[in-house]
Amino acid sequence: MLPFQRISIIGLGLIGSSVARAVRAHMPTVRLTGHDGDADVRERARKLDLCDDVTDTAGAAVTDAELVILCVPVGAMGEVAAEIAEDLPPGAIVSDVGSCKASVAAALGAALPNAIVIPAHPVAGTERSGPEAGFATLFHKRFCIVTPPQGADETAVIRVEEFWRALGADVERMDAEHHDLVLAITSHLPHLIAYTIVGTASDLEQVTQSEVIKYSAGGFRDFTRIAASDPTMWRDVFLSNKDAVLEMLQRFSEDLTALQRAIRWGDGDALFDLFTRTRTIRRSIIEQGQDDASPDFGRTHE
Amino acid sequence: MLPFQRISIIGLGLIGSSVARAVRAHMPTVRLTGHDGDADVRERARKLDLCDDVTDTAGAAVTDAELVILCVPVGAMGEVAAEIAEDLPPGAIVSDVGSCKASVAAALGAALPNAIVIPAHPVAGTERSGPEAGFATLFHKRFCIVTPPQGADETAVIRVEEFWRALGADVERMDAEHHDLVLAITSHLPHLIAYTIVGTASDLEQVTQSEVIKYSAGGFRDFTRIAASDPTMWRDVFLSNKDAVLEMLQRFSEDLTALQRAIRWGDGDALFDLFTRTRTIRRSIIEQGQDDASPDFGRTHE
Repeated sequence: MLPFQRISIIGLGLIGSSVARAVRAHMPTVRLTGHDGDADVRERARKLDLCDDVTDTAGAAVTDAELVILCVPVGAMGEVAAEIAEDLPPGAIVSDVGSCKASVAAALGAALPNAIVIPAHPVAGTERSGPEAGFATLFHKRFCIVTPPQGADETAVIRVEEFWRALGADVERMDAEHHDLVLAITSHLPHLIAYTIVGTASDLEQVTQSEVIKYSAGGFRDFTRIAASDPTMWRDVFLSNKDAVLEMLQRFSEDLTALQRAIRWGDGDALFDLFTRTRTIRRSIIEQGQDDASPDFGRTHE
Repeated sequence: MLPFQRISIIGLGLIGSSVARAVRAHMPTVRLTGHDGDADVRERARKLDLCDDVTDTAGAAVTDAELVILCVPVGAMGEVAAEIAEDLPPGAIVSDVGSCKASVAAALGAALPNAIVIPAHPVAGTERSGPEAGFATLFHKRFCIVTPPQGADETAVIRVEEFWRALGADVERMDAEHHDLVLAITSHLPHLIAYTIVGTASDLEQVTQSEVIKYSAGGFRDFTRIAASDPTMWRDVFLSNKDAVLEMLQRFSEDLTALQRAIRWGDGDALFDLFTRTRTIRRSIIEQGQDDASPDFGRTHE
């Protein structure tokens, strides 16, 4: 029993195209319709045969949908929801994949006051963008967090959860505010810090950019991966999850200042204690299958 | 023509044991002697057959050496150098692999006033520690920075450079002060920031540690890798390269404050501009062979 027979995906970038590929792989009988606001992306999606049909307008993509998944930057959710409002059939469920949930729930609720809105967030991705970058196994063994609004229809929530399980994800339920706090520390702050240090390194006058690149294997290159992520998506994340990001940033800055002081005053014990404590977190992440056990991310040394 | 026929390695952890394995692989006729201050590590090194001989004292390891490589934390260099001072044969070259060069040059110069000291730093490693963690290809296509003191014997410098090239490394020459500035941004600051954010995340009261681990695939897990590096080594690096690290940290903090302000005031253009600029650095690192081109560090998604 499939949770949905007709699914529409609005936004065919890395995540939308991965959802399309995963639906094809796990639910081959589902009728899949797609749309993207960019005509060039629509053309590429057609060539890649991502969906049964790629429509030229968002409205045309949803006319007979049972599930509509919005896979656009979080700042564009309200606008896209408004575009489909008139064509959305009664009973259709609208979900999304955005990395901030309170702001998205508010935007979708305002644009679609009569629709069944069940926001969700698959915690998965890569630093690549565009319909070519997606792949069917992106959500395997990754968590998908579903954040039903208060009073949401339980059957609808369960169908969305079943959908994500069918794509290989582990599903968790959370309220939107808690989700936004958890993601602020596990995803948004790491991206902000990575963007910052890559910016700092490229602005130095005593060390050239070519030296930064040459000697990046000392640790810096790890940060450049997530700092290569989609600029529009991440601009929207920081603007939409502002309060939680600013709170986590404040805590991080305090901790960094404490370490700075330990270095300035030569307090080796404080440094050693922290550096010992952080090792155990890495171990737990590997034990719980959330990262590879091979050293150096399994990079090849030939 | 081998640059050296008899090589001694003091310190048989990740780097020392990798040097041993690489010497065996690339210069099988070299006589290799090793020592480690920890009796348990010596025992394991003997079982792993890393060297022709593993001696119980540092002095005994160097009595007939042409090249001695100190592979101990930078804070221990002076002490280890003092231990070998009496047994070091005339004409032997003393080198090291430390991540800070000015402080190491000073420590080795003070402990070995009559020896030929040519410090070096292979920019390579993983988050693992101990003699089991090393491997022969660790230095392949990585840079080794040689920092000869003023007035160093040119023939000795060239022999050390040839040694590292023979292990597969690309060699660069730099003065110690510039090395320390370059490494402060490409290696030391990234480690400090990674340690900090992993510490911040594990101290939160609104988000549990188990949530941090579960949802780490959103970006956080990338930081946990280098935050799992050896605590003693990194404590010493921050204490030894204090001035350069504090300068880079100050710049990073200013840039982070500017981004914090952009988020608070909703300045999306400032965020977007930085996030676009940082993408190109990643591209250069991949083009120059300093990281893997596969998305998500080539992590498997099965």
